[in-house]
Amino acid sequence: MTDRRLEGPVRIVGAGLLGASIGLALQAKGVDVSLADSSPSNLNLAIDYGAGRAAQPGDEPQVIVVCVPPDVTATIVAAELAAYPNAIVTDVASVKLAPLAELNALGADVSRYIGSHPMAGRERGGAVSARADLFIGRPWVLAGHNGISYRTAGPVEDLALDLGAIPIEMDVAAHDESVALVSHVPQVIASLLASRLRGATDSAVGLAGQGLRDTTRIASSAPELWVQILAANAAPVSDILTAFKADLEGVISALDDVSATGSRRAIAEALAGGNAGVARIPGKHGQAKHFSQITVIVNDKPGELARLLTEIGELGVNMEDLRLEHSPKAQIGLAEISVVPEAEESLVRELEARDRKIAGALA
Amino acid sequence: MTDRRLEGPVRIVGAGLLGASIGLALQAKGVDVSLADSSPSNLNLAIDYGAGRAAQPGDEPQVIVVCVPPDVTATIVAAELAAYPNAIVTDVASVKLAPLAELNALGADVSRYIGSHPMAGRERGGAVSARADLFIGRPWVLAGHNGISYRTAGPVEDLALDLGAIPIEMDVAAHDESVALVSHVPQVIASLLASRLRGATDSAVGLAGQGLRDTTRIASSAPELWVQILAANAAPVSDILTAFKADLEGVISALDDVSATGSRRAIAEALAGGNAGVARIPGKHGQAKHFSQITVIVNDKPGELARLLTEIGELGVNMEDLRLEHSPKAQIGLAEISVVPEAEESLVRELEARDRKIAGALA
Repeated sequence: MTDRRLEGPVRIVGAGLLGASIGLALQAKGVDVSLADSSPSNLNLAIDYGAGRAAQPGDEPQVIVVCVPPDVTATIVAAELAAYPNAIVTDVASVKLAPLAELNALGADVSRYIGSHPMAGRERGGAVSARADLFIGRPWVLAGHNGISYRTAGPVEDLALDLGAIPIEMDVAAHDESVALVSHVPQVIASLLASRLRGATDSAVGLAGQGLRDTTRIASSAPELWVQILAANAAPVSDILTAFKADLEGVISALDDVSATGSRRAIAEALAGGNAGVARIPGKHGQAKHFSQITVIVNDKPGELARLLTEIGELGVNMEDLRLEHSPKAQIGLAEISVVPEAEESLVRELEARDRKIAGALA
Repeated sequence: MTDRRLEGPVRIVGAGLLGASIGLALQAKGVDVSLADSSPSNLNLAIDYGAGRAAQPGDEPQVIVVCVPPDVTATIVAAELAAYPNAIVTDVASVKLAPLAELNALGADVSRYIGSHPMAGRERGGAVSARADLFIGRPWVLAGHNGISYRTAGPVEDLALDLGAIPIEMDVAAHDESVALVSHVPQVIASLLASRLRGATDSAVGLAGQGLRDTTRIASSAPELWVQILAANAAPVSDILTAFKADLEGVISALDDVSATGSRRAIAEALAGGNAGVARIPGKHGQAKHFSQITVIVNDKPGELARLLTEIGELGVNMEDLRLEHSPKAQIGLAEISVVPEAEESLVRELEARDRKIAGALA
């Protein structure tokens, strides 16, 4: 346990997926973890899974992690701050300004509270889906505010590091605006886009390619959870959606009078704006990079893809990314492999020499 | 060449990526392919790549495939119909109503014209990027109209089958409405969404997860080409964007007065509509199916993923899908593996028994 940073015991309130995963990981590091949950059956399940022991009177946790739904987070944090006057309390809700405002309104001692947002976690499933390594390599936002800084909240950063997460410091308002942009708005847009497919004919959706699948994948998210998140971050999300709407109106006007002067330019500028925006997203290891894509045809049988990747490994080429898609109505798969541009030509040549079939990437 | 369906020679006008790929594939089947291109250097490049021979006076093609940019498609198709009175002419433009209307206006003999839309093709690159197997397993729409039916256009269907594509019959209007929904509108929406990232702080885009990457991936498409496509299909695209805008306004209103009666319900209904829409997209082999996702941590070194997939193959589990993502600022990759739900539990157990680390899927 020499690599552990946390010193004191940890109390986790809410033994769902996130709470139980934190508990599992900390227990594995030798931390004393006590668990509490308003549902005795949830609590017992998490204990059975090895996420910690039941909380007892007299526990003196150094850090308390509140892992409950967003709409009850502030109430529970306030109660924990009052019950454990020597502990630092954090939470894991996806918004940070609303719970802090509520805590201030409740008169809680926010000098011992700092919000967390681990950018990880499947959205469904309780303790039964918990994993000790859920947070490894994921950003963990520490949302500072007037009452507390990252320095004074050191044990919470230690906790994130002990979980294998990457702590990122950000103030509460910047956090909420950031997640509105990179997570909450994309969720709304993907849902509204997918919603248009409800009335589609079977033959129309039969033409769906990877582009549609990608743009709508997150539209399968759970509405119950997302209503809470969006409601708690309503202002930043609405601001971005309103700006999006203005751009959308520009494109609709241009399309409605497409032969007018400037219409094509307006459409081209909207598309170029997308080019510029997507280039801002960091790629592998934090750099924005462009890779060449090669699409290789593989038979749709167990082990086929492994054989292809073994060949690529033997050629000494490092794949930067890989996507698998299935051809509609055909028993073949298409593996889209990203490599550095310098490697593309020789890789294609070598694969073709091995009788591999190379197909184009979907537009 | 016993498996060839096409009988007569084929003439290809436009020796770019699509034209040269069609030529390569047909030549490999023993079809006599003649090539024409307004650029002598494009033409010679395609001939060098083995896509066909130069067209000559006296050629009597059975099928002519016009593979030129959308805005000149109708003019070239009309010229080909006039120059080769015994040939069936097709094109490969992504919209089908506009070129047909233009052909009618030009007084062309559309009883020998049927539009094609192969749902394949990388969007950049000329003959140098051509591949004989570009069309294998991809839908190839044959867009019938009053002048011609799929039956009378048999040789064009034969051509699609000889390329390994899957012919799909659809009338021109249904085609254009379908691609507006599954391709053109997603392109506009992804571009406008990505466009919002232009002014983002580095720390905001540093929180980007797989959801943002997926929803904005196609925003990197080439504006020049997409302006032509969108302008040629303006009415169906505008109709869908207008309906999208009405839904968007509903969400913005609800967010702007989130405590009002019905606001949360309105947001939940927008999200539930997305759930219903995304469920319409056919999955593997044409069925809509739901899979379990397991995210496994792999070291970011050549061959590591191949080893993981070999293990999964040894366990007898068929992967339905696979995605690779990279953790920001960490030298590890996360492989998201989709399997049938029945296989999830035992696969996780077996992988963990082999000391594999399982992480959660990104929300």
